[in-house]
Amino acid sequence: MDQRACDPAEYVRDLRKRACVPEGFRFFSDSLTFVPPERPASEPLTMNVAGIVSDRTETRSVAVTTRNRFPGAPIRLARERLPGGTISGVIVNNRVANVAAPTGYDDARTVADAFAQRFGISSEAALSISTGVIGWSLPVSAMLERIDRLNAHETDAVAFSEAIMTTDRYPKIAWHRGSAGSPTVLGVVKGAGMIEPNLATMLGFFVTDAVVPRDRLDRVFRRVVDDTFNAISVDSDQSTSDIVLIMANGASGVEPTDSELESLVRPVAQSLAVDIVRNGEGTAHVIELTVAGVADGVLARTIAKSVINSPLVKTAVYGNDPNVGRILAACGDALDRADPDGTVAADELRISLFGIEVFRDGAFHLDGSTEKRLSDALQRAAMDPVLRGCPQETGTVPIILTFGAAEASTVTVYGSDLSYEYVRENADYRS
Amino acid sequence: MDQRACDPAEYVRDLRKRACVPEGFRFFSDSLTFVPPERPASEPLTMNVAGIVSDRTETRSVAVTTRNRFPGAPIRLARERLPGGTISGVIVNNRVANVAAPTGYDDARTVADAFAQRFGISSEAALSISTGVIGWSLPVSAMLERIDRLNAHETDAVAFSEAIMTTDRYPKIAWHRGSAGSPTVLGVVKGAGMIEPNLATMLGFFVTDAVVPRDRLDRVFRRVVDDTFNAISVDSDQSTSDIVLIMANGASGVEPTDSELESLVRPVAQSLAVDIVRNGEGTAHVIELTVAGVADGVLARTIAKSVINSPLVKTAVYGNDPNVGRILAACGDALDRADPDGTVAADELRISLFGIEVFRDGAFHLDGSTEKRLSDALQRAAMDPVLRGCPQETGTVPIILTFGAAEASTVTVYGSDLSYEYVRENADYRS
Repeated sequence: MDQRACDPAEYVRDLRKRACVPEGFRFFSDSLTFVPPERPASEPLTMNVAGIVSDRTETRSVAVTTRNRFPGAPIRLARERLPGGTISGVIVNNRVANVAAPTGYDDARTVADAFAQRFGISSEAALSISTGVIGWSLPVSAMLERIDRLNAHETDAVAFSEAIMTTDRYPKIAWHRGSAGSPTVLGVVKGAGMIEPNLATMLGFFVTDAVVPRDRLDRVFRRVVDDTFNAISVDSDQSTSDIVLIMANGASGVEPTDSELESLVRPVAQSLAVDIVRNGEGTAHVIELTVAGVADGVLARTIAKSVINSPLVKTAVYGNDPNVGRILAACGDALDRADPDGTVAADELRISLFGIEVFRDGAFHLDGSTEKRLSDALQRAAMDPVLRGCPQETGTVPIILTFGAAEASTVTVYGSDLSYEYVRENADYRS
Repeated sequence: MDQRACDPAEYVRDLRKRACVPEGFRFFSDSLTFVPPERPASEPLTMNVAGIVSDRTETRSVAVTTRNRFPGAPIRLARERLPGGTISGVIVNNRVANVAAPTGYDDARTVADAFAQRFGISSEAALSISTGVIGWSLPVSAMLERIDRLNAHETDAVAFSEAIMTTDRYPKIAWHRGSAGSPTVLGVVKGAGMIEPNLATMLGFFVTDAVVPRDRLDRVFRRVVDDTFNAISVDSDQSTSDIVLIMANGASGVEPTDSELESLVRPVAQSLAVDIVRNGEGTAHVIELTVAGVADGVLARTIAKSVINSPLVKTAVYGNDPNVGRILAACGDALDRADPDGTVAADELRISLFGIEVFRDGAFHLDGSTEKRLSDALQRAAMDPVLRGCPQETGTVPIILTFGAAEASTVTVYGSDLSYEYVRENADYRS
């Protein structure tokens, strides 16, 4: 792996120059220090407190939240307030997840309500979102104090994207620039996974100045999230705190059709979803796994996710080892579990890696020179797994599993490899 | 972790002194070198060729094989020959898995038949078992040459258990010593997982001098394997080559009842199953995860396996971090996937670690001193993850998830933590 040049300050300056924020949204960011009482050591920790506020009362919002059976207090509060469809402010902290803390729900409500009051929005329209250590309690009074003066800490979307980072390598922000006939969309994400202990959480905040009724926003956004953020996998768990929110404030005066809206939001979401995998701490390769020729799309995705989550596949890719046997083994295991009735014709499987077909008719077709080519391609693709501050251009490892069904759509999922750095990041004591 | 004294030679000498082999079985072992044509580099590799032969024609055998949808040629051949119920010889190599190699099935057959002929057993009664790299072809002529003179390389069960090792840390062998009224049972295993690339295979060979009709052997052995070898998980994949075989040759003249047979075989299998997890390359802790209070036993096991396979849980345990939030998150994720109808009452969950209850009534009950006690317990339990040659006494991390169902059996599964050494072993280029 060659150490690529990376100037984080330059990267952020460039983002600031280019980022295009929809009208009528404001961003805030501050920080505080606190000592969690649940922690044996007593050094203070830092927490960022960041907010987004929509200035328009006609704001319409929807969100997709985790399906984890132990959702955190912020998710429980969000589920009460989201059906109203008018969320227009979120306050986010990046240190304490507020999951399974004894007074968690009340704390989330107190923080959200204070934020709502400070910015003059109805308390039903504010969320308190958290990522961080599970089991710890929010430092509520310190947070309230910061919220009270947050108005004096207005900043921009790029600074917001930096404030919600935990051990993310770099801020992740993407946008579609509007024009006369087309609204602007901006998305900011953090996570997910392979990051600081317990912070395997994905948060996403989208803002747009489009005019969209809530039911249409809901329909389009869910479809986009399902194909993008739900098609990535870093460490196979969904966290207790995942949420992706979109707020549409109508400031552009332009009302796109469903398909226009989808074409605006999807590329922003897709680019951020892949960025989440690419930016994972310790990631050297992004595995782009496509399953083709499986008639049942849900089954195709289950197969794809099983293979991409196999630790044996992930470690081989990290090691630049074109160990295609592991892909076959993981696929055969996935078929046993996900397709017990054998609807997928396993004997028709073909496997390609970097466009080179290595398996068909039940056998591998490999020789020393093919192995060498594949190994070289993996090595060339590798990012530096510890480089921080900027995205790296390389990293993608394309794998295609093709089965025989004629009437079948293609499913692509993205996952990370498994590196020493992943283990180090996730084994170190919470701090 | 304290570096515990380990003298591999002493350990093997002691095994040799104590191991108790049923009458009427012979063990063989030899090795060869070969150059796989599929490999870019051209240094020769070493392969062990080891065999077990039962001298009694009345031998009855059953085996449990992988359910991976791409079984290797040895498994396909075994499935043809196992229904006869009279397997009385196996030849095993530890280098080439013979999976998806173009002439794999014919090669497996050629090797098994030569072995059968050499030892005077019917060719329907011989298996050729393989573990190693997927996609490579067996070096058939070199193997036939070794088989031809294998009779001159008779050895003992301990040497056989060493010969089938790949990157196992130490040979794994266990037995029940027979007496006048009770037959002898001996088991030998290798694997599984977290070992040399592609060698994530578990092989198990049990021999007994009990008199057992095949249908009873089948019933009892499947039940035992399901509760022991199917309750361990190292890297969540089942390989293309897994097989556990038992041969009963009747030499003791004693015919145990079903429950007597089960009480002989189960402790041997249980001890070897946990040994497989304990001995995994890079393992520092064996996670012993119990799910209680779930009425549906299959669901209980699915939950248990999901939690034990979570990379976030595994890395935390490796890091001696009592990061109980990750256990909750993994459990909540597993419940979403495995129990979509919500039959399990998630709000009744209690979690304990090392016997200390840390979660109940939807909240963690943690403070600095509890965290310190748990962290110390993890540290004390840790094995040295690179120490080879002998088993280490410590390592076990007991976690109990208790739900509320009254009429429920308890399920316990065993899994390894996730260490730097795991990644190193599995990322290095195949060699």
